Order: sequence, then C-alpha cells, then structure tokens
Amino acid sequence: MTINIPDTDQARVVIIGAGFGGLMLARKLASSNFQVVLIDKNNFHQFQPLFYQVAMAGLEPSSIAFPLRKVFHHRKNIFVRVTALEAVDTEKREITTPLGTLAYDYLVLAYGVETNYYGNKNLEEKTIPMKSVAEALYLRNAILNDYELAITTADYDMRQGLIDIVIVGGGPTGVEVAGALAEMRKYILPKDYPELDCDEIDIYLIQSGDRLLKGMSETSATAAEQFLKELGVQVILNKRVDDFDGEFVLMSDGSRIQANKVIWAAGIKGKRISGLPEDVVVWGNRLKVDRHNRVEGQERVFALGDIAYMEEEAYPQGHPQVAQVAIQQAKNLAKNLRNELKGKAWQPFSYKDLGSMATIGRNRAVVDLPKRHFHGFFAWIIWLIVHLFALIGIKNRLFVFINWVWNYFTYDQSLRLIIRPRIKRHPEGYKVKEQ
Amino acid sequence: MTINIPDTDQARVVIIGAGFGGLMLARKLASSNFQVVLIDKNNFHQFQPLFYQVAMAGLEPSSIAFPLRKVFHHRKNIFVRVTALEAVDTEKREITTPLGTLAYDYLVLAYGVETNYYGNKNLEEKTIPMKSVAEALYLRNAILNDYELAITTADYDMRQGLIDIVIVGGGPTGVEVAGALAEMRKYILPKDYPELDCDEIDIYLIQSGDRLLKGMSETSATAAEQFLKELGVQVILNKRVDDFDGEFVLMSDGSRIQANKVIWAAGIKGKRISGLPEDVVVWGNRLKVDRHNRVEGQERVFALGDIAYMEEEAYPQGHPQVAQVAIQQAKNLAKNLRNELKGKAWQPFSYKDLGSMATIGRNRAVVDLPKRHFHGFFAWIIWLIVHLFALIGIKNRLFVFINWVWNYFTYDQSLRLIIRPRIKRHPEGYKVKEQ
Repeated sequence: MTINIPDTDQARVVIIGAGFGGLMLARKLASSNFQVVLIDKNNFHQFQPLFYQVAMAGLEPSSIAFPLRKVFHHRKNIFVRVTALEAVDTEKREITTPLGTLAYDYLVLAYGVETNYYGNKNLEEKTIPMKSVAEALYLRNAILNDYELAITTADYDMRQGLIDIVIVGGGPTGVEVAGALAEMRKYILPKDYPELDCDEIDIYLIQSGDRLLKGMSETSATAAEQFLKELGVQVILNKRVDDFDGEFVLMSDGSRIQANKVIWAAGIKGKRISGLPEDVVVWGNRLKVDRHNRVEGQERVFALGDIAYMEEEAYPQGHPQVAQVAIQQAKNLAKNLRNELKGKAWQPFSYKDLGSMATIGRNRAVVDLPKRHFHGFFAWIIWLIVHLFALIGIKNRLFVFINWVWNYFTYDQSLRLIIRPRIKRHPEGYKVKEQ
Repeated sequence: MTINIPDTDQARVVIIGAGFGGLMLARKLASSNFQVVLIDKNNFHQFQPLFYQVAMAGLEPSSIAFPLRKVFHHRKNIFVRVTALEAVDTEKREITTPLGTLAYDYLVLAYGVETNYYGNKNLEEKTIPMKSVAEALYLRNAILNDYELAITTADYDMRQGLIDIVIVGGGPTGVEVAGALAEMRKYILPKDYPELDCDEIDIYLIQSGDRLLKGMSETSATAAEQFLKELGVQVILNKRVDDFDGEFVLMSDGSRIQANKVIWAAGIKGKRISGLPEDVVVWGNRLKVDRHNRVEGQERVFALGDIAYMEEEAYPQGHPQVAQVAIQQAKNLAKNLRNELKGKAWQPFSYKDLGSMATIGRNRAVVDLPKRHFHGFFAWIIWLIVHLFALIGIKNRLFVFINWVWNYFTYDQSLRLIIRPRIKRHPEGYKVKEQ
C-alpha cells in the first residue's frame, strides 16, 4: 500500500522530520517546482529551546508548538503526513512507513536525535527526559504532584525523596531546567505551599565533565555556574551518574543522592534507520554527509541537522548539534535543490556561528557572540528577544510575550496545573501510546 | 493516619469539591473565623462551560483551569488538599481519604456529578465524555488523529467511520459541541486537510426527547435546532442510543449510524458516598437537603450544587443542575455559616434564575432571560461577555479574550495539536492513571 500523494511532473522531495531543519527546508521549497512531502510523528513542530518553560509551568504547550497544517495552509505543493520512517530502500528510491510506502526523488533525513541512556534500562525507565512537549508536560505534572504529596508526608526522608530533584547533564538544557527549578523554589513554592519548608528542597545539577556548557566559552560556563550557585543549585562536576533505582541516584564515585525525580539531559543519539549502509553511521548514530549534506555513497539521500555529521575546516569533528546548524544547512540545501532544477552548480555548506546562549533563572543569561561574551541581565534581554522572534507566528509570539511579561512582574507561573491524561482505548485500534 | 491540618480554635469547614459551588463557598469563607479545608481530586478548578472550546481546539486548558493554590495565596485559614472523599463517619464527624482521615465541624459535599452511562459498559468504555479538561483534551486528540488517518484511508466506509461524529445528548453540552464541530468542518478543516472532502463529514446530534435544550424555553430550543441545521448538523429527535460497539451506534428503533467517535453528553449522576444513610439519596444519586442545604437528618453535613436535591415552591422537583444554582447556594451557605458564629438566624435558600444560554457556532447563541429571549448574533455577544467576566483572574480573561478575537477574525483555531500523553511509571508509586 502506498501513501496517497498524487503523482505529478514535479520531482518529489520527501523530508523526514519537522524540526528546525526539516521545517525550514519545507518552507524554503514551498514556492518551488518541487512536490514536498513533510513527514513527522507529530502534527506539529516543537520549539525545543523553550521546553523547560513548559516543564516549569511558565508556558503553555501551544505557545511553543505549531500545527504543521497551519504552517502550510494554501501551499498546494506541500503535503503533510503524520507518521514515522521505518525503512529506506535506496535502490527503489522508496521509504516505508506505517501508513504505507512512498517513492521519492530526493530523500532528506532530518529526524533529529533522541535521549541517550547509554544502554542503561533503569535510567531509561525511571528518569524523565526533556526532548518533547509531552515530556515537558509529564515533568510538570510529576513535580507538582510530588509537592502535593509532600505536604502530607510527615516522614523526613520520604519527604526529601518527593521534593529533591536531580538534573543530569550540564549542557544548556540541564542548566536552564536547574535555574528555572531554583526560581520556582525561591519565588513560587513558598506562596503555593506555605506548609512546605522550601529550604528543605535540594536541587542538584550533575555534570560528567569539568565544567558546564561544554559547547560555550569558559567565561560563560563560569558565569553560569556562579549564577546557579547564587540560586542555591548544588552543582556537582566531574561525576557521572551510573544508575538510578527510583529512590537513589548512584554516582560513579559510589556516593548516593536521594530523589524520586531525575531529569536526564545527559546525552543524545540518533535512531538507527533500516536500509542505510552501516559505514555511513558514525558516533551517536549520526550519518556521514558531504559538504552538500548528501549522505556518503548516496545520490538522492541527504541528511541535515543533528542527525548529520559533516566535517569542514573549522569543524573537523563535525558541527555542534544545535538549531542554527540545522537551519543554515536547510537553507543551503533548499538553494542547491532549486539550483538543480535550473542546472546550476551546487554550493558547499559552511557554518556561520552566530553565537549561543543559555538562560539561568528569570533575569540572567550567558551569551557568546562571535566576538564578545555577555552575562547577566543584559544577556538575558538579548536571549529573550532572540527567542521571541524565532517563534513562528504572530499570535504565538504575542502569547509568549504576554506570559513572560506577566511572569516577570508577578513572579507568577500560572500554569501550575496537573492535568492527568485520560487513557482510554479508542475503537479502530487508535491507542494512546508512548511517544 | 490523619491529614496534617493544624488544629486551631477555629471551627473547621471541610469542603469536598472545588467546582463552582465548592470554590465559591471557600472564597466567601476566606476572611471568616473558620478554618477551611478544600478538597478536590485536581489541583485546579475547571470552568466547565468552556470545555467544548478546549475539545474543539479553540482554547488552551490553562485558560479555563485555575490552580487552587493560586486562588488562595495568602489565605492563612484555607488549606488545599488534592485527594478524594472515600467515606464519611457522621458519628465521629470524620472523613476518610487516601491521604488519611480528617475531622470536621462542618462538612460540605459539593463534589458535583459525573457522566451517567445508564449501566451500559460499552457506552462507558467506548464513548467520549465531556466533564473535565482531560476529557476535552482527549477528544481533541481523537478528532485530529482520526482526520490524519482519514486522509490516507482509501476505503470509503472506513473513512466515514474516521470522520463522522455522533453526539448524544441535546442539552447545552451536546448543542455547543455539535455547533463547534460543524464550524470546524466548514471553516477550518478544508484549509488544514485539502485532501479530505469535508462534505463527506457527517455530524449527528441525537436527543431522546422531542426537543433540544430541555432546560430552556421552547423558543430557544427551536432557534438552536434551526441554527444547527443551517450549519449542517443532522439533528435526530425522539430517538435513544441503546449501544455502541466502536463502529456503529445502535438506536432504539433499530437503525444504525457508522462512526468511530461518539461523544456522550446524555446523562449525569452523582457518586455514591459511603457513610451516608440510604434514605437521603434520590434519583441521580442526589442528596436530599433542606432549605439551608443541610443533608436530611444530619446536623453538620451539607450538600450544594449538582449533588444536592432541594425543593422549593418554584422548584417542586429540585433545582436544575446548573452553575448558577451552585454559586447562589454557596453564597447563601457561607452567609449562614458566618451567621452561626455570630449567633444569628439562618436564612433559607431561594434560587433566582438569572437566565440561561447556549452557543451554536461562532456567532449564534440562544439566551433566556427572566423576561425576554434572544437568539442570533446579539445573543452570542451577551454570551461572550458573560462568560468572559465569569472567568477568574485578569490574565485568564485576557488570554481567553485574545484567543476568541483571533479566532473570530481569522476563523482560526490554532490549538490543533495532538499531544500524546507520555505514560511512564514514576517511582514511589506515582502512576499516571485514569481520572
């Protein structure tokens, strides 16, 4: 059975993944003479940098998630299909999905990466990842629920287990979650839970390396650590988390930390796709591509974003796995594909590092620009503006802005709702299942 | 084990349920000399009249749900506990909950009603109710998911099953959901799913009686039916739904309708509470109360709102189960309880019908005021204003307002996200479970 996309004269570009890279590529091909099929397991694009705000109850999911069909209203050459890639047949130039097979002229793999638990089943089952809106919501519910339980828990140790949180991974995700949690503890919880002694709450951030934010400058890393400590986060460097049994985190040096909730932001890796030769796969399951994002040894298969591994002079070990790389690669690939139709030459990709940033709490951030570093309140303003404008859609920008302004002036995070999903078996086999 | 509420000199009022009635009662007792314990299974109050807007993707859950702890910030005499009532011991004056027991001086039962499936297990398992935000979200997901499947379903019958929807129950809930679905079909779906023939989508509203909106005037009922028919809803009167197997709805006259989704808004009933004498329970599991909302035969146990059954001259068969009754009873009970402290006499309750309304689509409503009836666009404006101001909290009002204005001018319902809940077993027994 084939997915019912009409056959036309246009060459068909099939894009797997509507993250930063896939979405940008589709948008840049929207008015081209290609037929574009955009495939994602969700019917929306998720703005990853702000997941932690959904988790910390500062933002609604809909402020950072964009229905794909809305993005491509009126685009007659763009088709959206909500499904997943199962296998590729590079001979037949065909992909297989649960909805059926689909032939392609060009296949672009932009499905990103998922959480890496390093093969540890306990970590996979018992920790909370942060790579989707659904996971951010789950975390929100877990945190609030445990506070509700804690206020009626007389036993000291049990209570610590409910209120203490461990975050593993000192990259931007871990740093931002830790900062937001520390603020929640300082400004919100005393008002919501006057019966709880919020000084009892311990927040740990554990990093395996010798500093936080390995992808940023040392200046920024030091400033971030300082800000976190001022917020009362216990930053633990040079230690790995070996295991978690639901009650205690076991560290590489044998020490233990008691906490029921462990947020795992300590590693990413790609999914293995059936049908691609083994030798194009490198560490983290990334796919080797040339300077045109073409998968090594392939003619019509490309990869971009986190899942792609491209070497260039300035990046001999591949690009950092960040949004800007995906977005820039997508723009370059779109231009090249359009050039193909005009018989023009392809241009190699070269990454322009526009800078990186991470926020710590409500008015601090660290920002690395190509020539300068900022940290503190001014950096936070820059961060705010950049992310606000990066969001697609006027309405979403307005909502996020209003939410932020409100929170800022009232220290308020109104979205403190525990909405438990309703699990019901739907007829015709539609089941609510794990994502 | 007892729930840890501090013992003070103050008399303790325990309120079960933070719906319209329970929440109003707590608010009116906030500055009194009572200690108030507000118990609800959720940590938020849900604004029921707008559930259908969450289901139809017009509103975010947080626009219509209010964290209880936020409502009662700084109220030192109000305690919130997220748990459920298991049993009452009227001798000991004590309630039992999963969190432990709690003694009361006054117990107010305001836990509302739930969906009534009339003992039919199929209906209970296979239809979709609409009495909570979680259920509204589930419905949203089910509708959007089935449209995604439908566009790749070639078989005509299977496709009908995915896109047709049956709503059972011609009260305000059924009417409003039907109207909103019909609008989604007319204005939104053709843009989102150009590959779907939206004329194929059938929406049925089935009512067992001879007219819709039995609690409203005949004028309003007739106008509502007319509006729905103009929107293309198939209104079926005088037929009952006997069963649903997941594919076909079986009617009382033997006819069948094919649809995978059946929204059940056809009946309500209270939960049975262990510990109350059988003879205070009347039809629909409502509890008999006197004109002071005191449960018959009891001294310190009260009931208000949907779960209470009170007769007065104008309402010989009890009050309608609507929000205004709950709110007014709560205000009256609060005054009486405060009077108790001052040694003043109790006042009987008398319901003032301020009117009722139901909306059909984006610019039509039917409104019954004590002396007049309105229907059409003007009625819709009235409806809009009333509900806007009924929402607690400036921020929520602003958000709802912006959402509505946006939708109105752009025919847009941006919240068309299918966010599948993440099911994970959380340590320490916290499980994501059915509500």
